[in-house]
Amino acid sequence: MFKKICIIGCGLIGSSLARAVKKNNLAEKIVSSNRSDVVNKKVIELKIVDDSSSDTKKMVDGSDLVVIATPLSSYEDVISKIKNSLKDGVILTDVGSVKENIINLIEKNIPESISWIASHPIAGTEESGPEAGFSELFQNRWCILTPSKKAKEKDINLLQTFWEKVGSKVDIMQAKQHDYILSITSHIPHLIAYNIVNTSLNIQDEKKSTIVKYSAGGLRDFTRIAASNPIMWRDVFIQNKKNTSKMIDQFIKNLEDLKKAIENEDGKKLEQIFTKTKKIRKDIVEAGQDVKKPDFGRKP
Amino acid sequence: MFKKICIIGCGLIGSSLARAVKKNNLAEKIVSSNRSDVVNKKVIELKIVDDSSSDTKKMVDGSDLVVIATPLSSYEDVISKIKNSLKDGVILTDVGSVKENIINLIEKNIPESISWIASHPIAGTEESGPEAGFSELFQNRWCILTPSKKAKEKDINLLQTFWEKVGSKVDIMQAKQHDYILSITSHIPHLIAYNIVNTSLNIQDEKKSTIVKYSAGGLRDFTRIAASNPIMWRDVFIQNKKNTSKMIDQFIKNLEDLKKAIENEDGKKLEQIFTKTKKIRKDIVEAGQDVKKPDFGRKP
Repeated sequence: MFKKICIIGCGLIGSSLARAVKKNNLAEKIVSSNRSDVVNKKVIELKIVDDSSSDTKKMVDGSDLVVIATPLSSYEDVISKIKNSLKDGVILTDVGSVKENIINLIEKNIPESISWIASHPIAGTEESGPEAGFSELFQNRWCILTPSKKAKEKDINLLQTFWEKVGSKVDIMQAKQHDYILSITSHIPHLIAYNIVNTSLNIQDEKKSTIVKYSAGGLRDFTRIAASNPIMWRDVFIQNKKNTSKMIDQFIKNLEDLKKAIENEDGKKLEQIFTKTKKIRKDIVEAGQDVKKPDFGRKP
Repeated sequence: MFKKICIIGCGLIGSSLARAVKKNNLAEKIVSSNRSDVVNKKVIELKIVDDSSSDTKKMVDGSDLVVIATPLSSYEDVISKIKNSLKDGVILTDVGSVKENIINLIEKNIPESISWIASHPIAGTEESGPEAGFSELFQNRWCILTPSKKAKEKDINLLQTFWEKVGSKVDIMQAKQHDYILSITSHIPHLIAYNIVNTSLNIQDEKKSTIVKYSAGGLRDFTRIAASNPIMWRDVFIQNKKNTSKMIDQFIKNLEDLKKAIENEDGKKLEQIFTKTKKIRKDIVEAGQDVKKPDFGRKP
């Protein structure tokens, strides 16, 4: 499908993509570039890629698909390094969780001949690093493409086919809409999980072992989400700060309403809200986005 | 172990306990009482109990263990129905998630001869009703006993053995401490899950299908928790309103701090908090309260 693919950043997502490329024979050659030479050595050892080096320019050279899979805050630096090594007609993509700002940033900094098409595979686990990746990560998961003005139609189609070949279902949308929808379905849930675990820790430093002991009552499920990559999420919230801020305000307003209902013992209102939220679960299971099997009460 | 056990309320917990009693031969006879005759018929049909009727007095009559497994708001009514039918020396327990208020309520309303020992099995799934129950629900899960002043030492030991025989690990603590700890490990996580799903729904009524479509990015995991029994949780928050209120205030304060850090693009602060919350996950897995296997990114 491609002659040479270069993945910049072999973390959970990058290394999973490299594995999926190899497994599905999507490139004659696949290479990666990582700042750390320990990682470069590791990914060659694990046979995830054919070659890997911290010399990003060299790795990018001659590639017809380049994938940026580093934290959002590094994009500016990555682009400044590679912009003069990208060959004419190359497809440049990424795997970041926020789109509007970075699309503009990269658009301004690359030549006209580059097809810059941002991707967001909605996939991941709470683990990080090249050893946590696996080739099936993208199977049956959505990947959203948000093409820039510099994207060529035929390249959008080609990139779509690429993601489909690693198992994804592909949607195309505007960056602005992407950032708004994802703030609701992904960014705010992660922020709230971090906040609830942080709140429990602050209050309970002296009673931490008791908290851990009884965590199966609900907190456990938040700690899973709050174990996600700190650097990645730091960048996501900052990059999507307008949507995040607005959603936090809405969240706090609703939480204060709930608090008032509890203090007034307004059982009718609480029951009404809790019944409504129960219904959405059914929709999610029906849409194939989760399994019906109860998991919350799973045995440790 | 007991001659006759009566379970009042065969929902998820009550019916699971009845199944576990049968499976482990812990009573010569097990009966239940439910307000709905559809449920009474169902639990006999399913052979979960030997007899069942809406006549609670009659079902309780002659029992040496009585378990209240109805929502907390019904306790006053249940006690007024059964207090004159409880035989001398009976062990009276429950399975409710909040303790301090209801212990006092029941203590005031029953004769001296009754051993009133509140129980809280920390177990459950997001499903409800007698058909959702299963006999292994309590295996390897904590059950906290908070004995009242009317509890006899030998009965506390007997009830502890009973819970151990259905698979639980038992702890004994003061009701006040129980309500505080559980507000952190269970009640607030549930309230927050309800609030985040409710917030998403309010904002997005017109875009509900898009939200459902991309819910695997994080929201999905909250909808699981927010699908729990609305009546049960309504009562929990009202019964534990003092602890819940205080924790909400703390949660909002911390969330406002996070919002400020995001708006100021204070990456250092965000990273510091997210790294701290990641660590607690390791402790929970080490304590056997969850499995290490990544689940958040599970395939639908």
